[in-house]
Amino acid sequence: MYQINENYLKLPGSYLFSTIAKKVAAFTDAHQGERVIRMGIGDVTKPLCPAVIQALHKAVDEMGEAETFRGYGPENGYAFLRDKMVEFDYKARGAEIRSDEIFISDGAKSDSGNIQEIFSLDSTVAVCDPVYPVYLDTNVMAGRSGDYDAAKGIYAGITYLPCTAENDFTPAFPAGKAPDLIYLCSPNNPTGAVMRKEALQRWVDYANENGSVILFDAAYEAYITEADVPHTIYECEGARTCAIELRSFSKKAGFTGLRLGATVVPHDLRKKVKRADGTTEEVELHALWSRRHGTKFNGAPYIVQRAGEAVYSAEGQRETAEQVAYYMRNAHYMYETLKKAGFSVYGGVNAPYVWVKTPGDMTSWEFFDTLLEKAAVVGTPGSGFGPHGEHYFRFSAFGTYEDTVEAMARIQALQL
Amino acid sequence: MYQINENYLKLPGSYLFSTIAKKVAAFTDAHQGERVIRMGIGDVTKPLCPAVIQALHKAVDEMGEAETFRGYGPENGYAFLRDKMVEFDYKARGAEIRSDEIFISDGAKSDSGNIQEIFSLDSTVAVCDPVYPVYLDTNVMAGRSGDYDAAKGIYAGITYLPCTAENDFTPAFPAGKAPDLIYLCSPNNPTGAVMRKEALQRWVDYANENGSVILFDAAYEAYITEADVPHTIYECEGARTCAIELRSFSKKAGFTGLRLGATVVPHDLRKKVKRADGTTEEVELHALWSRRHGTKFNGAPYIVQRAGEAVYSAEGQRETAEQVAYYMRNAHYMYETLKKAGFSVYGGVNAPYVWVKTPGDMTSWEFFDTLLEKAAVVGTPGSGFGPHGEHYFRFSAFGTYEDTVEAMARIQALQL
Repeated sequence: MYQINENYLKLPGSYLFSTIAKKVAAFTDAHQGERVIRMGIGDVTKPLCPAVIQALHKAVDEMGEAETFRGYGPENGYAFLRDKMVEFDYKARGAEIRSDEIFISDGAKSDSGNIQEIFSLDSTVAVCDPVYPVYLDTNVMAGRSGDYDAAKGIYAGITYLPCTAENDFTPAFPAGKAPDLIYLCSPNNPTGAVMRKEALQRWVDYANENGSVILFDAAYEAYITEADVPHTIYECEGARTCAIELRSFSKKAGFTGLRLGATVVPHDLRKKVKRADGTTEEVELHALWSRRHGTKFNGAPYIVQRAGEAVYSAEGQRETAEQVAYYMRNAHYMYETLKKAGFSVYGGVNAPYVWVKTPGDMTSWEFFDTLLEKAAVVGTPGSGFGPHGEHYFRFSAFGTYEDTVEAMARIQALQL
Repeated sequence: MYQINENYLKLPGSYLFSTIAKKVAAFTDAHQGERVIRMGIGDVTKPLCPAVIQALHKAVDEMGEAETFRGYGPENGYAFLRDKMVEFDYKARGAEIRSDEIFISDGAKSDSGNIQEIFSLDSTVAVCDPVYPVYLDTNVMAGRSGDYDAAKGIYAGITYLPCTAENDFTPAFPAGKAPDLIYLCSPNNPTGAVMRKEALQRWVDYANENGSVILFDAAYEAYITEADVPHTIYECEGARTCAIELRSFSKKAGFTGLRLGATVVPHDLRKKVKRADGTTEEVELHALWSRRHGTKFNGAPYIVQRAGEAVYSAEGQRETAEQVAYYMRNAHYMYETLKKAGFSVYGGVNAPYVWVKTPGDMTSWEFFDTLLEKAAVVGTPGSGFGPHGEHYFRFSAFGTYEDTVEAMARIQALQL
């Protein structure tokens, strides 16, 4: 008689963005003709840039001819893409990452959900609070938490690192024993905050001293505008022995519907393991992830990997930089407008998210409902990202400029 | 101090196809100029058909325009694709599957590796022997096995269902307690055998009687030529309460490099669960997989889903049927030639794999080395699929007809 994985039952209700989608659907059903402006989910709106479209067409043609058709690709991705990443994302930043340390995937969501598998089930986990729900939910599903405390909005057994205006949204080291796995995301989703070089270096040192692994999500690095913010954790000394990095083409080049990402596992991440027969063995996390990747995944589509390569061409670099600049103009506009309207505003400088304090004593969901009902504007309730996100709210800069201006005008008009 | 998932260390050596790739690379290095014919890995060689190429170009163009650009898609895939599957893969076969019971994915390898996650870690697992390694390896990685016995080539705690010429490659029910999870694959990889309607119905009945779940891999259904072989397990009565089906576009339409598959989880698969507070709750496996899918995956690319849709157009159906027929001509040629050459030959009638008994007392790897060294032909050693695959060998029909003929001539010339 089979049994289910009961850890799934610990997860309360549905996934944040599903809930939002349902509320919005109910609103639009009830208010036909009213135009809803969506600044909730972090999905891009600009089409793929010409360099990428051209590369896709070319690759599709290759797939239609016997001489150039490609079936199963190399397990960790095509070298043409990994080599570009080495050059542009690492060498250019003074970071030492080799091509074979990069594993191409179908996106950072898959990787950030799957990476926990290579660690023991009794590993302790630390996440920032608020946090991108995937890090937490996937560890709950694997059984690394106790039960959910609905009143507090937290899981037993998980270490939460509060990130609020009071600490400038920068996590402090937890009291007591160091966690085994530490998820960090900079520029941060949802707060838009960044870890500056010095702050990130302190975490790298902490991980090395305590035998922790940092799972560093760099999905938003293309949005960094300030000089002292690392684009990769491998800009920090010692990161090769303690950090795995997750990268994405979703926000950098608008690939949310195309699906491409990468995980970097340096060979220097090694662990001594005692075998049952008393001998010890040194195991590379690279070997474990390679095995996971090769056994449960069969590569990102060839045509999509060619699209990724095109992002690094001269035209691709220019065109994707223009997209990023377009979204950042939205972020800047929101930041300034909301500030003028009297809100406490954060993020938006090195990230496509603006993070605001809700007015008065409103909860995040009250503010969500108010904006939806009175302004037909959709954002994301901060409490959906964790208890310390309560009384905060996320606006995404991924809409059109016109919609951004219109949404801000509608919010200003509410005089909250 | 973090610890690794030590279950990974139970896996012996590297993945079967990696080992083959390394042996072939060593051979080609040593024998420059000698043309190796690859009939090992089950990768297709024919280019994508015109209907699919056309759909890809059209979808790429849509991604390049703001009005038609698509970002994140629906969590379980676009309805345009799921609806086609309902019509062609289920309704047309007299099987009742609803559109929302289908989850589109990036391929059957991912799904067949990930599906075990929704079951408890102490679930018992049965696999056919020989078997596609992914079913087994992913359960080992999750911790559902004991140690590997290198001498016997089996894991403790796993139920192996021998499939050999003696039982016509059809698994018998295991002695003793019924396993919780039963992996079945028909047409079978690697043996090319099929489960006829009656045989599959017996397994469905067995699963329903014993509270087991069947994980049915239908990746090769397009190769079925005989009438009494089910194309989907849902042709069997009662399958909706005990079976999850895995489907793939890889072999059906040559999508190995494009990545598209689907998992079907009927709403009737329900499990009563006792909560800590003594109450019971009925949980749908559909809800669990939906949660898994929505949390750790972000959809197959829009353009690839459009390509999948095109497979069901009139042209797509005709063109992919031609591809399948082309490969089946190879299978037929191999079957007849090897038989004439005195081999005991199986499969090849409803499957793109021909499964032969190795000549004399040769082990599978001895036969592999002989074919590689003396004929420059690569196949897959049966023992790589499990101990009961020893003394068998798999030939893939996915090459060109010319290569197939040439390979068979080379093997005949060896007079084994």
